[in-house]
Amino acid sequence: MRRTITGFSNPAVKALRALRDKKHRKRERRFLAEGLRLLTDARSAGRLPEMLVMAQGRDSHPLLESLEADVVAHGGEVIEVPEDILAKITGKDNPQAVAGVFAEFDTSLCLLDRNAAPIWLVAQALRDPGNLGTMLRTGDAVGAGGLILLDDCADPFSVEAVRASMGAIFTQRLAQARWTDFIAWLRAGEGLLVAASLRDSQPYRGAPYRAPCFLMVGNESQGLPEAYELACDLRVTIPMLGAADSLNAAVAGAVLAYEALAALSPPD
Amino acid sequence: MRRTITGFSNPAVKALRALRDKKHRKRERRFLAEGLRLLTDARSAGRLPEMLVMAQGRDSHPLLESLEADVVAHGGEVIEVPEDILAKITGKDNPQAVAGVFAEFDTSLCLLDRNAAPIWLVAQALRDPGNLGTMLRTGDAVGAGGLILLDDCADPFSVEAVRASMGAIFTQRLAQARWTDFIAWLRAGEGLLVAASLRDSQPYRGAPYRAPCFLMVGNESQGLPEAYELACDLRVTIPMLGAADSLNAAVAGAVLAYEALAALSPPD
Repeated sequence: MRRTITGFSNPAVKALRALRDKKHRKRERRFLAEGLRLLTDARSAGRLPEMLVMAQGRDSHPLLESLEADVVAHGGEVIEVPEDILAKITGKDNPQAVAGVFAEFDTSLCLLDRNAAPIWLVAQALRDPGNLGTMLRTGDAVGAGGLILLDDCADPFSVEAVRASMGAIFTQRLAQARWTDFIAWLRAGEGLLVAASLRDSQPYRGAPYRAPCFLMVGNESQGLPEAYELACDLRVTIPMLGAADSLNAAVAGAVLAYEALAALSPPD
Repeated sequence: MRRTITGFSNPAVKALRALRDKKHRKRERRFLAEGLRLLTDARSAGRLPEMLVMAQGRDSHPLLESLEADVVAHGGEVIEVPEDILAKITGKDNPQAVAGVFAEFDTSLCLLDRNAAPIWLVAQALRDPGNLGTMLRTGDAVGAGGLILLDDCADPFSVEAVRASMGAIFTQRLAQARWTDFIAWLRAGEGLLVAASLRDSQPYRGAPYRAPCFLMVGNESQGLPEAYELACDLRVTIPMLGAADSLNAAVAGAVLAYEALAALSPPD
């Protein structure tokens, strides 16, 4: 039922540690999520880990016990390791008492139902896993359907992205696509493509958002390619009153998302 | 004029590398900022580095040449190092071609002129330097006066915070204070203290913001202490439609800041 592993060189520990590396993660099509909160959020969203890794000497917790029972009941594996091994696995000095190994989700664009939510976030060549996770978290908060990753983005299944998502990796839909495939998919149905831009744009407040609304942000240092901006149905400006000419990508996405949410919400 | 250093063990290189460590940084009261863009932003804001560190073999650039001349004219030092040493100094694999060493600013609360700007950002026990830098960047964008750091926050002069600020470390005022000192200072003059909260609060959109408006966010995992929330003049709710119950701290600050900006801006 429950295995205890105490050696760093145990193959299972090595395999778990390797999941912090993108190449191994892609080969195994598995990823790590840590913390009881994240794992119970995952369960609420219908996702159970294939393997539960628990620290020895942890405080007992009814949620953790019921999670363990669920994992076992669904054919999953439970292992116990010393805290220092868990720290190595998660790459965090003070790891939470538990981590889970999940199968990666299918991120095909064709699986998205664009009418399932009024707002979708779109990120192009987003390189920072923290920004990526934060966008998932914001998407959850505004009731977005999910996050569409265009071109070469950070890996959404990295420990850093999963951590920053605060569980939204399990509640938001996730899709990965090249721009040409995305724009073809988008134009085959309804959808307003929006980006912050200085080109032929209007104030972001009071702009004519409509659902399903796809809010796109670009790469942290380059912004969006010109062709992507020009393909948008709506270009909006966010006030920039200081010396800088742009916001953090996740912040820009959030400011747009809350504006779109207000515009698309029925008045009280 | 310009010194060239090629050895990792050179004392100047060791001293520069040590600036990545908070303890050394505090002792020296100096910090590092990297990249030509950041350094020219600093100069525009009236801040010149005491020392300029340039990579050998960099492309020549008129802005860099005029910056070098300015540093020398103001009694500063210029050193040239191989690119791999610059990488060690900045802790970045592909360093930009130049970095500067600046004297830390005085972050006493009493130096702030609260009427200098309509919006001020306040962060309590913010632990992530990226979030801290992002809040500075957002503050610059909304025309805030600066960022007030309460209690034990990440170091605003860390390389990570400076980098995430994208130059706003030089354009925004920065203050550090304990809560009791901050609230005494705040109540000795005008100022509306605002936080996102679920306690006796109203919708963040359309709330009665007024200048000077102090927008406060709490620690990434704990949020604000109850006493801090209760001391606020205005508590507002940001819609949370999903499974999560909070936003990333820098995102929450930005959503509030853009709302306050809209409320406090004269209509067109």
